[in-house]
Amino acid sequence: MTEDILIRNARPMGAAPVDLLIRGGRFSAAGGDRPAREIDAAGFIALPGLVEAHTHLDKTLIGMDWFENRVGPTRDHRILADRNAKRELGIDARRQSARQILQTLKLGVLHIRSHVDVDTEIGIANIEGVLETREALRDLVDVQIVAFPQSGMLPREGTFELMDEAMKAGADIVGGIDPATIERDPVRHLDAIFSLAERHGKPIDIHLHELGELGAFCLELIIERTRALSMQGKVMVSHGYCLGMLDAARQKALIEALAAERIAVMTVGSPSAPALPLRLMRQSGLVVASGSDGIQGTWEPWGNGDMLERAKYLAQRNGMTNDADLAETMRICTFGGAEGIGLARYGFAEGDHGDLVLVPASTLAEAVALTPHKRTVIRRGQVVVRDGEPATNLPDIA
Amino acid sequence: MTEDILIRNARPMGAAPVDLLIRGGRFSAAGGDRPAREIDAAGFIALPGLVEAHTHLDKTLIGMDWFENRVGPTRDHRILADRNAKRELGIDARRQSARQILQTLKLGVLHIRSHVDVDTEIGIANIEGVLETREALRDLVDVQIVAFPQSGMLPREGTFELMDEAMKAGADIVGGIDPATIERDPVRHLDAIFSLAERHGKPIDIHLHELGELGAFCLELIIERTRALSMQGKVMVSHGYCLGMLDAARQKALIEALAAERIAVMTVGSPSAPALPLRLMRQSGLVVASGSDGIQGTWEPWGNGDMLERAKYLAQRNGMTNDADLAETMRICTFGGAEGIGLARYGFAEGDHGDLVLVPASTLAEAVALTPHKRTVIRRGQVVVRDGEPATNLPDIA
Ligand SMILES: [Zn+2]
Ligand SMILES: [Zn+2]
Repeated sequence: MTEDILIRNARPMGAAPVDLLIRGGRFSAAGGDRPAREIDAAGFIALPGLVEAHTHLDKTLIGMDWFENRVGPTRDHRILADRNAKRELGIDARRQSARQILQTLKLGVLHIRSHVDVDTEIGIANIEGVLETREALRDLVDVQIVAFPQSGMLPREGTFELMDEAMKAGADIVGGIDPATIERDPVRHLDAIFSLAERHGKPIDIHLHELGELGAFCLELIIERTRALSMQGKVMVSHGYCLGMLDAARQKALIEALAAERIAVMTVGSPSAPALPLRLMRQSGLVVASGSDGIQGTWEPWGNGDMLERAKYLAQRNGMTNDADLAETMRICTFGGAEGIGLARYGFAEGDHGDLVLVPASTLAEAVALTPHKRTVIRRGQVVVRDGEPATNLPDIA
Repeated sequence: MTEDILIRNARPMGAAPVDLLIRGGRFSAAGGDRPAREIDAAGFIALPGLVEAHTHLDKTLIGMDWFENRVGPTRDHRILADRNAKRELGIDARRQSARQILQTLKLGVLHIRSHVDVDTEIGIANIEGVLETREALRDLVDVQIVAFPQSGMLPREGTFELMDEAMKAGADIVGGIDPATIERDPVRHLDAIFSLAERHGKPIDIHLHELGELGAFCLELIIERTRALSMQGKVMVSHGYCLGMLDAARQKALIEALAAERIAVMTVGSPSAPALPLRLMRQSGLVVASGSDGIQGTWEPWGNGDMLERAKYLAQRNGMTNDADLAETMRICTFGGAEGIGLARYGFAEGDHGDLVLVPASTLAEAVALTPHKRTVIRRGQVVVRDGEPATNLPDIA
């Protein structure tokens, strides 16, 4: 199904131009017949597929009427508004997830980890909806599904059983949520989700907004369980604001402990939340990924899911303006994300998946700073987007 | 030169649809002959011209080769790099200011206050360059020029005299810069710029990055001088980060004192600087304006000068997601800016300048959240941009 293709003058991660050959959907050593298809990538830099390591595909309102946000200021208000919206606005998780995926595909997002709500009102309907979309769009993008107890697990009886059901239905990752401030019992919450992960042999991804020392304590509990269950490389902490709120010595020790258990941290670089110490985190060997979180939903009205723009937000939040720093935030949104969500064969080496995003820019930093939109996207050797427009007939499911 | 025009179904600041008539370049009461030209604004909201209250037109690198930013981390490194760049990159203030103006015109920016460097290396060459552009583009946009001592005034002998010269050459506003951390003598610096403003009968605009109590002290000095010289409504403080760093009582008292002297505050909502208390500031009657600061220059590599996107940054930095809050940030980027930089006849009332930006959105909040680009821009009754593209032959001076 996929043709061979030669990409001339490709500049992998902004490096010097080379010719890249994709055969049978994978990067291949030079040699053999010259493929009939060629693309000249002069004037572009070449990235592997952008990695969206944290979003909520089932909750975007893309393409729906404008939602007037009158939601109260607390997190509980927001969770309630979110739960009500599913019912009152009739958000169709299948359709909405397809809309977001097709929108971000044009920007080069080829790998998505999405948290998907599981609760006692909708059961696992959203999981089923996103699973359906994933199947329909499997030739275009990889989707990982996290069973996510948005409304709380311990306080809402039956949620744990629904999460178990979600995992059986095909969810890939067990999701956790603020173990103290929402769950009110950090040890019991974490024990529950680690046990569920163990039962299904799956990774864990925990929304952790807990602040300061409370967050640090929760991180310690997560580290202890990761070590005890030998889940190194299988646990991601999403947000982890507390890492930006500790004194320098405590911060460094905690980051090193996370790195030692290969627990990844996902940060969106939110302008209104504590800034995580990106440089220190990367220098300590911590795996850092990034994501858009919800876009155009009841939580936040904005967002386009562009992971180049996300790299810009990360730099801006950290006051980084140097080219070298911008290249680092780009790495977070590509290789960092890939390692964080556990992608195999990601990159430009022989045998890696033949995925490529060509961005009209001269350097990684320019691509981050200016986020040009006329990108060309190749997946498994197939040109799916050309200069920002779909190159093939995309499935009409949105 | 300007034809009369009828804008049907216009929704001023998102309000219910009305027909707006522009005659002789100004909004006019209904009646008289129906103009030959009409626009149907259904599907759009109508804003008065977006107000860019703080940028640096002479320093953007738009359209030039990518500048590799290797600048060191301190402000002194940045000022030095900035000064070197003028020479080494051959930044032409006339051409570059035109490029930025024409780029943001497409987005509906019709009023710009620009700080323009004055220093002992370039003298007032940048002032002259931007003056030239202002004259060439006078039918498209209003430009105010601040004579800005970027490299310091007191520490670099001759700068004060150059600023005096800049004011004589046609600069509109006397610029100040961190009176303590750059100038090393807050009283002498402020006395000097207030005396210059008095001499020329012009307003003042001060870059104030001083933090915490040092910034608060500088604000007090500014308040005292504004009162003593009866310069109410003629002074703007740009950035004023200290306002986001004080305890609640001190913060409130200072904001009220600024409001009492009608000193405006300009904030860009920088993601890496202290967040200003926007709600409190507006509720206290303080005039709040916003701007892009430098875009695509040696200080910061990004930025497109879009004041709708700026409204989004303001909301994001303040953790605001409600429609009502987003509408407030839009007001800052329109009416707040207009009041802050002292525009006359700004708005939709009879006799106001016939300026209008039509944005494809259903509400102010939607426009802020999604910042759609296909805007139609009318200046003094003339359609200068239609659906994001220049509607007339713009002057070819960039
Ligand atoms: Zn999330
Ligand atoms: Zn500035």
